Amino acid sequence: MTSPADQEDSSTRPRRRPGGRTSRTRTQVLDAIRAELAEREYDEITLDAVAARAGVHRATVYRRWRDVGGLLADVFEAAGDDDWQPRDTGSLLGDLAALNHESQTALTERPSLVAALFAASFRSAEAARAVRRLWEDRYTRCEVIVERAVRRGELAPGTDARQLVVAAAAPVYHQLVLVRAPVDPGLPDRAARTAVLAASAGAFAVPPGEGAEGTVDD
Amino acid sequence: MTSPADQEDSSTRPRRRPGGRTSRTRTQVLDAIRAELAEREYDEITLDAVAARAGVHRATVYRRWRDVGGLLADVFEAAGDDDWQPRDTGSLLGDLAALNHESQTALTERPSLVAALFAASFRSAEAARAVRRLWEDRYTRCEVIVERAVRRGELAPGTDARQLVVAAAAPVYHQLVLVRAPVDPGLPDRAARTAVLAASAGAFAVPPGEGAEGTVDD
Repeated sequence: MTSPADQEDSSTRPRRRPGGRTSRTRTQVLDAIRAELAEREYDEITLDAVAARAGVHRATVYRRWRDVGGLLADVFEAAGDDDWQPRDTGSLLGDLAALNHESQTALTERPSLVAALFAASFRSAEAARAVRRLWEDRYTRCEVIVERAVRRGELAPGTDARQLVVAAAAPVYHQLVLVRAPVDPGLPDRAARTAVLAASAGAFAVPPGEGAEGTVDD
Repeated sequence: MTSPADQEDSSTRPRRRPGGRTSRTRTQVLDAIRAELAEREYDEITLDAVAARAGVHRATVYRRWRDVGGLLADVFEAAGDDDWQPRDTGSLLGDLAALNHESQTALTERPSLVAALFAASFRSAEAARAVRRLWEDRYTRCEVIVERAVRRGELAPGTDARQLVVAAAAPVYHQLVLVRAPVDPGLPDRAARTAVLAASAGAFAVPPGEGAEGTVDD
């Protein structure tokens, strides 16, 4: 896969002017597309309805976002601009469990914007690239969970943070997004505990001589 | 979530007459929709094109499968009729790694029918129910991996087979289907090893007094 940034048509991305009219318009339009996503099926969403809901001229919406895929990509983009950080509960198990509970809640609340965005990411190549960037951003922010655990002496230095966090988080997304299994209230804690037990047994130790990301090309 | 079977309109499902004309028609039509899925975007697929490709009268296709979602649901249904079994490599680690390599190959080959089916399952409620049944079937078949490991003395009796297999498999699907990360050739083995280490540390032990599936409603 090439870098998503390489394929980006930068002319379609709104410039950020915090507090300015551009910024206000973007906020209104993104609020409108989020509300539409929560209320109806992807195929029923039109740029005209988004513009009307946002109270923004439709020509502005068409010019800046081009289509529903472009709007979705910008929803993901905006999500990456927030100040979200994983909770600091004081233990590795607590941090991973809190992360999983947050994911499970976001995926199961009704309407679920997160679930709608996942579905939409299969509909638009632009949204798919944006969701990839958002995951990348979120997993990078989560690496602090492992750094804290290493500082506390819960984990050995040289633990691959990304692998550990993915192992903890993947079962929750797997069951709810891909398998579409009924909600399992115990899963967030169990998946967190599984990852901690595996970590304690050395599952995410970076092999000597390799960097933390050095296992990708082997 | 109610049982998918409850929501099924049984009149739209073809009766199975192995070797008969119904069976031949179904095979031709399902081969055609699989080929279409591999070649073009979901939105471009029409029942007319599927009928033409299959050499089956279009009225037959419309009557029996109704729409593209109905066809997709039957593709999943047919996949559940195969005689797939997880490989028996002689060890728990080997079995889980083989399973993960199989998944990774199916998701990354081009064109990938599996990847197309995942995307399509977000487009059609009927296909979504069918994909749920297929996962259920596959994970049930995979439980033999854990049974063999218990017999070999690699795992303690009372290990939750489903949880173990999901823990081993989830990271591969997560990275390729949801995160859309570049292919990581080492991931199938690493995810299998992580699950085995966690299992050895008791991560999937069924609490005393509970059945193997007894954690769902706690």
